[in-house]
Amino acid sequence: MAKTAVVFHSGYGHTARVAEFVAKGAGADLVAIDADGNLTDAQWATLDAADAIIMGSPTYMGMVSWQFKKFADASSKKWFTLGWKNKVAGGFTCSASMSGDKLSTLQYFVTLAMQQGMIWVGQTETNEYKITEGLNRIGSFTGVMAQAGAMAPASEIAQGDLDTALAYGKRVAEVAAKLA
Amino acid sequence: MAKTAVVFHSGYGHTARVAEFVAKGAGADLVAIDADGNLTDAQWATLDAADAIIMGSPTYMGMVSWQFKKFADASSKKWFTLGWKNKVAGGFTCSASMSGDKLSTLQYFVTLAMQQGMIWVGQTETNEYKITEGLNRIGSFTGVMAQAGAMAPASEIAQGDLDTALAYGKRVAEVAAKLA
Amino acid sequence: MAKTAVVFHSGYGHTARVAEFVAKGAGADLVAIDADGNLTDAQWATLDAADAIIMGSPTYMGMVSWQFKKFADASSKKWFTLGWKNKVAGGFTCSASMSGDKLSTLQYFVTLAMQQGMIWVGQTETNEYKITEGLNRIGSFTGVMAQAGAMAPASEIAQGDLDTALAYGKRVAEVAAKLA
Amino acid sequence: MAKTAVVFHSGYGHTARVAEFVAKGAGADLVAIDADGNLTDAQWATLDAADAIIMGSPTYMGMVSWQFKKFADASSKKWFTLGWKNKVAGGFTCSASMSGDKLSTLQYFVTLAMQQGMIWVGQTETNEYKITEGLNRIGSFTGVMAQAGAMAPASEIAQGDLDTALAYGKRVAEVAAKLA
Repeated sequence: MAKTAVVFHSGYGHTARVAEFVAKGAGADLVAIDADGNLTDAQWATLDAADAIIMGSPTYMGMVSWQFKKFADASSKKWFTLGWKNKVAGGFTCSASMSGDKLSTLQYFVTLAMQQGMIWVGQTETNEYKITEGLNRIGSFTGVMAQAGAMAPASEIAQGDLDTALAYGKRVAEVAAKLA
Repeated sequence: MAKTAVVFHSGYGHTARVAEFVAKGAGADLVAIDADGNLTDAQWATLDAADAIIMGSPTYMGMVSWQFKKFADASSKKWFTLGWKNKVAGGFTCSASMSGDKLSTLQYFVTLAMQQGMIWVGQTETNEYKITEGLNRIGSFTGVMAQAGAMAPASEIAQGDLDTALAYGKRVAEVAAKLA
Repeated sequence: MAKTAVVFHSGYGHTARVAEFVAKGAGADLVAIDADGNLTDAQWATLDAADAIIMGSPTYMGMVSWQFKKFADASSKKWFTLGWKNKVAGGFTCSASMSGDKLSTLQYFVTLAMQQGMIWVGQTETNEYKITEGLNRIGSFTGVMAQAGAMAPASEIAQGDLDTALAYGKRVAEVAAKLA
Repeated sequence: MAKTAVVFHSGYGHTARVAEFVAKGAGADLVAIDADGNLTDAQWATLDAADAIIMGSPTYMGMVSWQFKKFADASSKKWFTLGWKNKVAGGFTCSASMSGDKLSTLQYFVTLAMQQGMIWVGQTETNEYKITEGLNRIGSFTGVMAQAGAMAPASEIAQGDLDTALAYGKRVAEVAAKLA
């Protein structure tokens, strides 16, 4: 079995809830970026030891939160030595509208993963035309998109999004196991 | 008043319907790219004469249709002389899921407009949290996103999307009038 | 004449040097984001009063620096009221390689500007095939790309990049003057 | 060993030359999209049988050529059944300037690969600061970027770009072998 980690920032608990489902699917350790954008040495060690790192962030103003970006900038230490080369990567995001600029966030996760020499695994659950409910109700392929209204608590994230997150975690872990 | 044109490709009539609402809002001429990706000389002349060109395409396999891309490639003739420099640009797309990769299509419209030296105007209607209905129900800012289920006819595009298209056409034309 | 501002973050002085040339071209006020990603109230007021805001950031790990992103996240206060609607926007970035993921940074500036309801003006200087020197030597359209080797000081940014920055500032200010 | 294929469109021979080096590195079959954007049944069969598909296109007007896009649209037949799920994917592009909008093309390859449920492998050769020559002289991570001046023949593509293409083909094939 592959060692997997989910590294994420969550501002108000929504992305944290999605992270839990991804982690459950992958059997992953949860690595929470703090409110100042920092990780502890132990958290960095968890990422270094992982076969797969799945990244999560809310989409704020069309992109990952600054706290997630601070983590990404700090990961340049790994970049210098290509220390994360060939790890498997994936990503998920959550925001208030159905589309918003969530794809922009997922695209950035890919860009970051490519700078790190990682291998990207996308989301493959299909919706079968049941728009607005069920697996992949939002229609996302590069990673997982989740949604909860602007004033809605994390508990109101649609079950379809959480189920997609769970299935995605499982998929990433399976690919990582093959490559490990 | 500004002269505006809506240049679009539509495979099955959905994008054409959105184009009609954008054109109505803008008071624009409709310039339909044909099934082989071609425009007539008269259609090119309409674009050359316009103060604003609003681009539309379905999102197929995560990007504008090949017919729209053939038009974009043919527009390199304008690029060589920066013949469309300072025209106002905008864009809209339609696909079967709520998000899909519609943002990828809108991003490409921006990239094309920038190569042509055009000035990009985005979508500014807000949703006020009425997710899945009303103006900008999908949550799009770079341009307009519309949606109709995979098997649904063009008549089933949500009214909110069409209203957004109408308001967007109006906005682009207003900016073009100021710059003309 | 239009009031313009250049808001930027610079880690080691390279982006600051490009910012100076953009600002000179535009006749703009320089608004430097500090090392913690913050602006003073007076700096926010400068942005609020501007007809055009040109954004600058190094490209770190494939995207704007976290400090710039912290500014972007803080700009959500303007987003709630569309307080920056119809301001003109532009952007520039600097990194160590010729391409790198500089386009990713420029794309994000566009995404942010669109969320704010701003109007995007790109870079229109052409290179005339003098690859690696002269105006637009790197080949960028969405905004300005500048480059200096990883160990090179800011003084070694190519003159062509700085000339492009100057011309770009002028262009953005001209469009802003027409719209003001 | 993995079965690999390089599917590409080339307008004037530049992208074809890069394709040859990628294919040599990967031990891949070359699958050339014709001037009308079509493949033969035998060519589709080659792609169906491959463990890895590496995509190549010039960057025209900021994106893959319309011929490549026509291939992408036709690949929707595979999408309906997720017939290419878990194949490895990669990509390369060539254009006249150092950056141009080549990243836009590579991003689209990723988007297409994700729609198809494929697994993306990026470019990991480093440049060690020898900007403008040597491996990865342009600075690209998501895939391979190659460059030859606007009037230059394919024979003038820099050796560093071709060496990068060769190394990239090898890398993609190695990952595919592990996953096969």
